[in-house]
Amino acid sequence: MTLGVVGGMGAQATALFYEKLIALQNVETEQEYIDVLIYSKSSIPDRTAYITGKSGESPLPALLHAVKTLKTAGASCIAIPCITSHFFLDDLGNRDFGCILNMLEETARHISGTGYKKVGLLATMGTLHGRFFHDALARYNIETLEPTPADQAALMEYIYAIKKGRSVDLARLHGFSGALLSQGAEAVILGCTELSVAAKDSSHDYIDALDILAQAAITKSKK
Amino acid sequence: MTLGVVGGMGAQATALFYEKLIALQNVETEQEYIDVLIYSKSSIPDRTAYITGKSGESPLPALLHAVKTLKTAGASCIAIPCITSHFFLDDLGNRDFGCILNMLEETARHISGTGYKKVGLLATMGTLHGRFFHDALARYNIETLEPTPADQAALMEYIYAIKKGRSVDLARLHGFSGALLSQGAEAVILGCTELSVAAKDSSHDYIDALDILAQAAITKSKK
Repeated sequence: MTLGVVGGMGAQATALFYEKLIALQNVETEQEYIDVLIYSKSSIPDRTAYITGKSGESPLPALLHAVKTLKTAGASCIAIPCITSHFFLDDLGNRDFGCILNMLEETARHISGTGYKKVGLLATMGTLHGRFFHDALARYNIETLEPTPADQAALMEYIYAIKKGRSVDLARLHGFSGALLSQGAEAVILGCTELSVAAKDSSHDYIDALDILAQAAITKSKK
Repeated sequence: MTLGVVGGMGAQATALFYEKLIALQNVETEQEYIDVLIYSKSSIPDRTAYITGKSGESPLPALLHAVKTLKTAGASCIAIPCITSHFFLDDLGNRDFGCILNMLEETARHISGTGYKKVGLLATMGTLHGRFFHDALARYNIETLEPTPADQAALMEYIYAIKKGRSVDLARLHGFSGALLSQGAEAVILGCTELSVAAKDSSHDYIDALDILAQAAITKSKK
């Protein structure tokens, strides 16, 4: 079977997701790697701008087009390595596209397995405003802590710098995270895939939603 | 326009190609990145095994399927970040698929621009046996030097280790290259995209065919 990936949100996060997919597979010949169709569609309108009401341009038509294109091209199951896009997941899931992995659900289930009851969430303004990640965690009785408004504003700049390919200071990510840990979070979720890009060489013990999605995608594809 | 990429040959090389595409674009917002459709189709049968007669299973049907799929899905132009696959380029190009970038031609033209007349070629047995890279270089009056049979056998093992995701010693690549330079090569081509993966953090001055393809693909996509 062929895995489909709606990507480009951001491009760096999709590249890292693809690398994680490869690294998770232990093969003896190239031909054993799963086939993957990646639609890196960075032209999809900004999700946060739409969810927070700053832009009237919905990303949904472009997301639908990407999913349809991948399904028509032969993808069996779809992964979307962008948390904020999961705001639109019900709209995508209700159209008989078949299997679309739910990164929120996968992450919440993973955290539930660790026993954590209160986690910090580093994510976009769109994700915080839309509350859909909070809701997914609440279904597993997990409480969510958010950054202060000042930290959140700085975090958004940090995320958008990564999307533009700028290099960012990993210590700042640890700072955003540390503030949540000192507020009582037992662990911190990298709840925006750009943050997985920032943290890829970090030894800190984050809950990396991109890692969890990659593992879920491999498991699904090997079935 | 949307760039199509027939990838997965190997997966690591396609991941690096995608990263190079991203890094070559200087954007102010995510939406400015070109859209890319990547078909990472590692299931395509081994090219070298077919070209050298070790396997009767032609990669051509799977390559044709990948190109057709990408064109149908909306790709305007196709890049194939795998040198050995260019053995089949005439078969792919003769089927009215429209634009398919020619990595051999792009590399030969680039080298011609530098003024080099004699270059070393580090590539698969399939590429050496098929002579198609030699021919592309010869059309620009560039002479090709090959590794010794012992070095070539070791180089094949090196390439296949990269395809399996094993870490390799960069010093060995410099060794293969150094031998060609001492035979009189003015420069050495990384003429297999796995070698671009090995050399990605190297400061040596290789002619990197993957870099050249990425630049050509961006230029084409921005037109």
